[in-house]
Amino acid sequence: MVRGVSRRGLLGGGAAAVGLAGAYGLGRVDDPATATAGAGEERYPFRGEHQAGIVTPAQDRLHFAAFDVTTDSRDELVALLQLWTAAAERMTGGGAAGPVGPVEGAADLPPDDTGEAIGLPASGLTLTFGFGPGLFRDAAGTDRFGLADRQPASLKDLPHFPGDQLVGRRTGGDLCVQACAQDPQVAVHAIRNLARIGFGTVAIRWSQLGFGRTSSTTAAQDTPRNLFGFKDGTANVRAEDDTALGEHVWVGADDDAAGSWLAGGSYLVARRINMTIETWDRQTLAEQEGIVGRAKGTGAPLSGGEETTPPDFAMPGSNDQPVIPVDAHVRVVHPSSNGGAQMLRRGYNFVDGTNELGGLDAGLFFLAFVRDPETDFVPVQLAMARSDALMEYLRTTGSALFAVPAGVGEGEHVGQALFT
Amino acid sequence: MVRGVSRRGLLGGGAAAVGLAGAYGLGRVDDPATATAGAGEERYPFRGEHQAGIVTPAQDRLHFAAFDVTTDSRDELVALLQLWTAAAERMTGGGAAGPVGPVEGAADLPPDDTGEAIGLPASGLTLTFGFGPGLFRDAAGTDRFGLADRQPASLKDLPHFPGDQLVGRRTGGDLCVQACAQDPQVAVHAIRNLARIGFGTVAIRWSQLGFGRTSSTTAAQDTPRNLFGFKDGTANVRAEDDTALGEHVWVGADDDAAGSWLAGGSYLVARRINMTIETWDRQTLAEQEGIVGRAKGTGAPLSGGEETTPPDFAMPGSNDQPVIPVDAHVRVVHPSSNGGAQMLRRGYNFVDGTNELGGLDAGLFFLAFVRDPETDFVPVQLAMARSDALMEYLRTTGSALFAVPAGVGEGEHVGQALFT
Repeated sequence: MVRGVSRRGLLGGGAAAVGLAGAYGLGRVDDPATATAGAGEERYPFRGEHQAGIVTPAQDRLHFAAFDVTTDSRDELVALLQLWTAAAERMTGGGAAGPVGPVEGAADLPPDDTGEAIGLPASGLTLTFGFGPGLFRDAAGTDRFGLADRQPASLKDLPHFPGDQLVGRRTGGDLCVQACAQDPQVAVHAIRNLARIGFGTVAIRWSQLGFGRTSSTTAAQDTPRNLFGFKDGTANVRAEDDTALGEHVWVGADDDAAGSWLAGGSYLVARRINMTIETWDRQTLAEQEGIVGRAKGTGAPLSGGEETTPPDFAMPGSNDQPVIPVDAHVRVVHPSSNGGAQMLRRGYNFVDGTNELGGLDAGLFFLAFVRDPETDFVPVQLAMARSDALMEYLRTTGSALFAVPAGVGEGEHVGQALFT
Repeated sequence: MVRGVSRRGLLGGGAAAVGLAGAYGLGRVDDPATATAGAGEERYPFRGEHQAGIVTPAQDRLHFAAFDVTTDSRDELVALLQLWTAAAERMTGGGAAGPVGPVEGAADLPPDDTGEAIGLPASGLTLTFGFGPGLFRDAAGTDRFGLADRQPASLKDLPHFPGDQLVGRRTGGDLCVQACAQDPQVAVHAIRNLARIGFGTVAIRWSQLGFGRTSSTTAAQDTPRNLFGFKDGTANVRAEDDTALGEHVWVGADDDAAGSWLAGGSYLVARRINMTIETWDRQTLAEQEGIVGRAKGTGAPLSGGEETTPPDFAMPGSNDQPVIPVDAHVRVVHPSSNGGAQMLRRGYNFVDGTNELGGLDAGLFFLAFVRDPETDFVPVQLAMARSDALMEYLRTTGSALFAVPAGVGEGEHVGQALFT
């Protein structure tokens, strides 16, 4: 993590700040030589071995967008990825989307940045790009971009799971961008400018805002709570666990012949899971804890201990039943119940106003990075659909799968290995 | 502002923190004696001369909810306001929604708090309550609660403005609650628990999340930016300006005979204003600045100076036109163009996913507090509809008006003067 400078901090000082705004009007970032530490000034390098936004400490805010590619030209697609790469590197560094910036350009041209992030620091922004199955073969099976023979075997539409109530305008997509930041205005600014740059080549298919990260991705982060009020992601794969990352998150060089370009990348599963929170809120504490299999306060398994104590699924309870019920969520999704399947979860809470029943349109926007969805996600989701008591309170309304290429090297563009 | 304690901070320490969670499990707030300062620990008193959340320094996040009253019983309505008052006082103090809390109650009862804010500090939460026209007379004109003769003359549905494209499920409401906080999870938790408490008496009609406050309400706050990329609210009425507050925000004791109970309160205008940002982003910088009438970077009027310099509407420009165009937003809405009308604006940016055209469903959730909407809001809105160049990029999809009673005294409930 690199600490930068907040122009907002500089501008807070009153009249003297106006001159500074002019002097540094090119972008969002002031001269690092005058840097002072402050909130939101985290910066993560855009280039590296893996894309940022996976093992990066989970930021508090999300704007996720899925795009349809509206051109049939491979050259235009590649050109867009080049433009997106340059813009992403600038914005994650705290700069403007374009080289000129929001206010310094010619008056007779549209600005190359939309301006709502002027004065805001980098805010830990990460931009993570993925490719959907439709980029390789569209719905009719057409190989629009000459990529069909490079489609990884596991990059295909997820199966229909029992209980799915998918809404078309929240599902699928040829490309995705996950924008995470400490400030939603910074995340929204990034997605909006990438969409602007892509006008004529891509169109937003759906987008989702989230808050209150529901997972920790590093050992130093505490475990946050989802809208059921429970700690979520206690058993997450974390950045420090190289073994688990290698086994369950990063795609290996030999995992897939057609998808060899994806080595060092990952798969991103996105699921918009509505919670029927009004119904949940009328359940007793004991019922809620039995459904989850954990204590609501501490997050400890019902078999005892602390949050991180492994659950004892064999411990007997009353009525000849185990103390952790057979249909408790923690049991159904546990690696020991699913052939060792694990994921790096990175989801967010969402509230999108009101649903048709007068309840909150709220829930968990589930994001998980896995080495192979066939082994690390699908079996767990099927087990949940089959026997998880929590399913009564869940309704999945959106779903998508993307291949997230490895990190972007110097001089490269996002996903370059796929096109060479 | 009172500084409190962050349980999140205390819980960050690892294993030793588990004991603390048990010891202080009753609510969200730990023993103030162990307080340490930290982010999000602002607290604002719930009781006072005026409701908090009006001149309170604008927090960064919003969850706004409008409710329909589903009972015809005045007693049930009053009982709800009493319950809401107690819950609001607890939550704005950093506590749980109910006296027992999320995890300390009997296992065979639903918890009296939903738990997702466990560990989160007060985060500057304010809860501001308002009464809609329907509380006094419903759509059929029925006086459901014996309040018809106390309906203030100005508390009626706003007129239809040219360009309004109102959506029923985003418009109106018998009651409203504005929850503002630095953390969206805290604001969402508050609205969700008030809705839970009101189950059977009220139902959420619509709700709206917002981020990136678009106004400053105190002199110390910098001016934020809306999604057009421009500073917004430069000329806002601010907390320090007692004269303007008395003239334009607080209802006077003699303003309205029927509405004498509203003295010391205000009117809250809520308007969900979609921006066609994709179209806006294709305009040149000069066009954008001409439409707004201000420089995009500094916020200074096109007639020169700094952000706070009064605009010179007479200053000549080129082509025999004034330098600030005749249809520029800053001119059309200026008090000098509208008989001195002023408002205390407190709006937020919003992005609610994607619209039917594949653009972002994004814009400004406009909130303004005024002494009388007839004099301080309607004329300005009509002037905008008539001649503001900005209107081409705006589409108002939701609208509501509420009377916001004065502050809650010791031993009183919200809006008590209306019922006595």
